[in-house]
Amino acid sequence: MVASTRVAGLSLQDVREAHARIRDKINRTPVMTSSTLDAQAGGALFFKCENFQKIGAFKARGATNAIFSMSDEEARGGVVTHSSGNHAAAVARAAKLRGIPAYIVMPHNVPKAKQDSVRRYGAKIELCEPNLKAREAGAARIMSETGARLVHPFNDWRVMAGQGTATLELLEDRPEIDLVLCPIGGGGLLSGTVTAAKGVKPGIRVVGVEPAGADDAYQSFKSGAIVPMTNPQTIADGLRGTLGDKTFDVIRHNVDDVVTVSEAAICRAMRTIWEVLKIIVEPSAAVPYAAIVERKIDVAGKRVGLIVTGGNLDLDSLPWMSNEVL
Amino acid sequence: MVASTRVAGLSLQDVREAHARIRDKINRTPVMTSSTLDAQAGGALFFKCENFQKIGAFKARGATNAIFSMSDEEARGGVVTHSSGNHAAAVARAAKLRGIPAYIVMPHNVPKAKQDSVRRYGAKIELCEPNLKAREAGAARIMSETGARLVHPFNDWRVMAGQGTATLELLEDRPEIDLVLCPIGGGGLLSGTVTAAKGVKPGIRVVGVEPAGADDAYQSFKSGAIVPMTNPQTIADGLRGTLGDKTFDVIRHNVDDVVTVSEAAICRAMRTIWEVLKIIVEPSAAVPYAAIVERKIDVAGKRVGLIVTGGNLDLDSLPWMSNEVL
Repeated sequence: MVASTRVAGLSLQDVREAHARIRDKINRTPVMTSSTLDAQAGGALFFKCENFQKIGAFKARGATNAIFSMSDEEARGGVVTHSSGNHAAAVARAAKLRGIPAYIVMPHNVPKAKQDSVRRYGAKIELCEPNLKAREAGAARIMSETGARLVHPFNDWRVMAGQGTATLELLEDRPEIDLVLCPIGGGGLLSGTVTAAKGVKPGIRVVGVEPAGADDAYQSFKSGAIVPMTNPQTIADGLRGTLGDKTFDVIRHNVDDVVTVSEAAICRAMRTIWEVLKIIVEPSAAVPYAAIVERKIDVAGKRVGLIVTGGNLDLDSLPWMSNEVL
Repeated sequence: MVASTRVAGLSLQDVREAHARIRDKINRTPVMTSSTLDAQAGGALFFKCENFQKIGAFKARGATNAIFSMSDEEARGGVVTHSSGNHAAAVARAAKLRGIPAYIVMPHNVPKAKQDSVRRYGAKIELCEPNLKAREAGAARIMSETGARLVHPFNDWRVMAGQGTATLELLEDRPEIDLVLCPIGGGGLLSGTVTAAKGVKPGIRVVGVEPAGADDAYQSFKSGAIVPMTNPQTIADGLRGTLGDKTFDVIRHNVDDVVTVSEAAICRAMRTIWEVLKIIVEPSAAVPYAAIVERKIDVAGKRVGLIVTGGNLDLDSLPWMSNEVL
């Protein structure tokens, strides 16, 4: 295991190695622009469209890097994770590519559609009670019974390096970018993003954006110590997690700022992306653009990269059709 | 006016000239693929994404070609059209690019959002009663008062040639395609498509797809005479028109077949495109794929181009949220 042999930290070299490892196993996603949105923002916006990534989200990058970093010896027993979202599908797909078993621990109340998106890659699902303790206990039991290795959704150097590859591609395609906006859930994407961005272009600014209703990273960043997330209230279901020790360490020392956005701004941003860019993005993926919509970040005259994280959501239940968030 | 000097007909050369004329004024739209959809279909599908075209639909091509084909003398009085949809925005935009006035005759019950999409390009809107007679009378009056020239939505050789440029690009990018599926409303797109496709690759098959609830082109094609559309019933609002004499002439002599699809298939196809390709397409744009979903066309082992015509629709009212069509 590449990452387990080093003490700590994440470097541009790790992200470059991750990219070399996974690039033929993922999509090179497009960067979209819109003169309409640029005129509204007063700056040039570059949307890195990870909704077009394998499994519909950037999570394919980190999971694939983690699983293809393992030695044959490590990989033999397969991999396990506990997740109900995009990371579960990403682990299932990467394990199938590598030809090893994948075990996914999921709360029993996860919608069938999400279970199906994991099963189609041949992963085994273990249902558990819908709380973190039950999920972790389920994963631990599977590890001891099968020898499967844990692929954590974000607090894993290999996963963080993999997520950074989106920004490597973005800056290859658009080297003029001088500000990158990235959503924060557990911090895996932001850790990789800031490592890649500042590695390639030291003067670049990187700002994390978080729903105000799940602002643990904002509080942690400002206070200098991890503030756990309790009772998150946001439609951005991918961003409800709490930072890990590894992701927090990278973020606190490298990220320029963290800002928060309202639910109304997330909803408006998501709808505008659908209407103008004509792409399906999930609520979490609209969070960076929400910071521009809500004028939380000054982008006047700037060239701004936005990581559009994914496009998986329930099309029967769109946020602007509910009165809750508006 | 290029086309008015010839008696009739449409050639590959017309489409090539149109492309040379408009290519720096439109988007070169991407061609999307999906291994998931290919596996379901049993063939290789290539989606030409005109939802990413200027004004959100292929209509930008034909209107731009028509307006930039005009001599300065012809263009001086501006252009007029009667349309409530994508063609209106396309004419407004192209006229603005050329620096001439545009007059759009629209029924007074057209949603404000559609009026705004025309006004933002500086076009003048004339509201009229919601019937074809009032629209045509309004356009005729403007022509006589201002000297503006009519740009018909489909029954115009310059418009038809412009619409064909999407297929020129598609076959440049994917020369292996052996079947092209194209929706039919007034027949402008299908005329241009078949002219471009058979011009570039004589052995290629071109099939038109039409909602069963607005099957005038199907009936016209099978009977050999134009059957007018009365009381169309379909969610594919871009496909409710009747063929014109020019479009019918090209279609009846060149298209291999016309098939119809149910409303349920259109709805299912649209939703599948949203979910799997992660792009916003309007109901009309899902009609070609609906023919595959409903097994109206055998695509086993074939390489199939589908013209995805546009992505403009009301996000507050999605077809799968209504019980009417399911």
